[in-house]
Amino acid sequence: MNFNVTLKRVVDDSYDIEIGYELYGTLARDLSQGLAGSRKRLAVITDDRVEKLYAAKVLESLREAGFNAEMFVIPNGEKSKTRQMKEFLEDSMLEKGFRRDCAVIALGGGVVTDLAGFTAGTFGRGVPFVNYATTLLAAADASVGGKTAVDTPLATNLIGMFNQPKKVYIDISTWKTLPREQISSGLAETIKHGCLGDIELFEYLEKNIEKVFDCDRQVCEYICEHNCRVKYKVVMQDEKESGLREVLNLGHTVGRAIETVSDYKLLHGQAVAIGLCAQAKLGEKLGYISPENVARVQDLCQRAQLPTSIPGYIDKQKLVDKLYTDKKVREGKLRFVFQKQIGEMMCFGENQYGKQISREQIGEIIDKM
Amino acid sequence: MNFNVTLKRVVDDSYDIEIGYELYGTLARDLSQGLAGSRKRLAVITDDRVEKLYAAKVLESLREAGFNAEMFVIPNGEKSKTRQMKEFLEDSMLEKGFRRDCAVIALGGGVVTDLAGFTAGTFGRGVPFVNYATTLLAAADASVGGKTAVDTPLATNLIGMFNQPKKVYIDISTWKTLPREQISSGLAETIKHGCLGDIELFEYLEKNIEKVFDCDRQVCEYICEHNCRVKYKVVMQDEKESGLREVLNLGHTVGRAIETVSDYKLLHGQAVAIGLCAQAKLGEKLGYISPENVARVQDLCQRAQLPTSIPGYIDKQKLVDKLYTDKKVREGKLRFVFQKQIGEMMCFGENQYGKQISREQIGEIIDKM
Repeated sequence: MNFNVTLKRVVDDSYDIEIGYELYGTLARDLSQGLAGSRKRLAVITDDRVEKLYAAKVLESLREAGFNAEMFVIPNGEKSKTRQMKEFLEDSMLEKGFRRDCAVIALGGGVVTDLAGFTAGTFGRGVPFVNYATTLLAAADASVGGKTAVDTPLATNLIGMFNQPKKVYIDISTWKTLPREQISSGLAETIKHGCLGDIELFEYLEKNIEKVFDCDRQVCEYICEHNCRVKYKVVMQDEKESGLREVLNLGHTVGRAIETVSDYKLLHGQAVAIGLCAQAKLGEKLGYISPENVARVQDLCQRAQLPTSIPGYIDKQKLVDKLYTDKKVREGKLRFVFQKQIGEMMCFGENQYGKQISREQIGEIIDKM
Repeated sequence: MNFNVTLKRVVDDSYDIEIGYELYGTLARDLSQGLAGSRKRLAVITDDRVEKLYAAKVLESLREAGFNAEMFVIPNGEKSKTRQMKEFLEDSMLEKGFRRDCAVIALGGGVVTDLAGFTAGTFGRGVPFVNYATTLLAAADASVGGKTAVDTPLATNLIGMFNQPKKVYIDISTWKTLPREQISSGLAETIKHGCLGDIELFEYLEKNIEKVFDCDRQVCEYICEHNCRVKYKVVMQDEKESGLREVLNLGHTVGRAIETVSDYKLLHGQAVAIGLCAQAKLGEKLGYISPENVARVQDLCQRAQLPTSIPGYIDKQKLVDKLYTDKKVREGKLRFVFQKQIGEMMCFGENQYGKQISREQIGEIIDKM
């Protein structure tokens, strides 16, 4: 006997990304106007670096607007992206009486937005959340796509879910307090976006990249918008990462492995920069990109104060081994995506952006870096 | 500056529930025909009771059909529905090389389907899963609605997600090996469905309930189908539990609290039966149900070998306290849903099925039970 459960419906997860200066007031006003329904109980999730700088301002404007807001603080850094930290947040929220009728404000960089977005997605089987991004990396990487996740000892970003925020705020004023290496780290994703789909952005960076370190408002807004646009273009065409979305992994196959093998001494963007250079060099060998364009990618990374070679303390053999436990490995085969010159991606067939690369091929490149 | 991310799309989560005898072969055939896409790597999640009885048969038919299937076993019982057990499953799957291109088969009762469905929902940001239900409780409760969750020390079912299976198999032949109290436990949810929305089902149970213990195929199929139908009717009209879906909590407010306070000595359905009687008695006092109909509910529970009063070892004061940490408590106010005679629910306004009940009102009923 068969019983059919018909569950076809229209889902609208559309949201706005607001790019600007000091957006605390806007956040409180949006929430008052129903951004998260009629919910009055807010969990502000942040890290201990951002807490000192901005949490008081955010909490104050939320409380002034009549919200019952409490703060939950995790240690700064990639090592906080764990199931244990998610559990800590859940238990802390439950202890303070948070239940299904709350909303989550993720205040911080990519680690905070990834972890808080995932926590919101499973708390009470899902409560609304917004991202208030305080780093360029979060602005470049975490604003579009709905990916949330934690790391486990065996794999990065493998436990998580797709969960769209109700709104994203990119507050450029907060970049003034970022350590230079955090700006650099964010620029790596921006350079990646230029490489994979936006020659204009790449050339704009070649003209203006130093101004990002001065937090030049016009330059920062330009790159934020272009970051969103590139990522949106890709994600829109492929929400579930079946094909096209793989191009966003440009530089990430090697990058993520280096990040892990460095035990997170390297920031995400620093590792991605090395990964970008590795795919460019391998791509040159395979005839996908000219030596001149490889040099442009490396130059831009260097001007962004990013590493372009593998630090001495990394065991290269261990790195190659690590690559084969990456989540992109399908049936033991390692797939890479490659840029086609600058601003386009190599495509190896319909929806086929990945190309299988042997241990020897990538090993040879890594050995020389 | 504003950037709009437009994410409006049609989602089709429709699936079939197949009710029958020994459906291993059907499962393997469905998967071969693309039920989970082209995935060949299958994680069969089960518990140590079901493992001994059915896992070999399921694994065998999957392997014969060419799948690379492995088994992951959790201890039987409600205490396995934890974040730690989810983590154990994730780590075991990762260790065995499972990545995003796998699918999950939940083989067991409600605990297994809840935990495995949640695990599948966040593994690799979501892989497909099917439920192969081996208990009446899972057939009655877990087949429709897409609710998956784990318990935490502070709340039951509060961490989880909505995740729809690709298909549900209800294998009535497996009920033959169920302990009697497990059949009883499943009947509690069936009686609940009769009370809240199906007078025909209720009257059919009054005629045939003993036959369920003999696994009479016709009777079992009838109640399976009616269980699905009642739950589907409710869930279809309200997928996100904003209003109508609350009626499915009939008997569960008190039930879940008793289950926890008993430290899971009471099975879920046993606790729900007590909860059903409690709401009926409180409903009688409030004029929602006649004394005769309260007696019918109690009689049916007794014939299903379910408790209708609170066991002596339960601290009633602790029980009332526990009620106020339930996830249904909104701003400290406890809401109950009530049946209206038999086969309908009380409605207290548009989409208002919950009614606020004071500590004293419920305390008085509990004291006398």
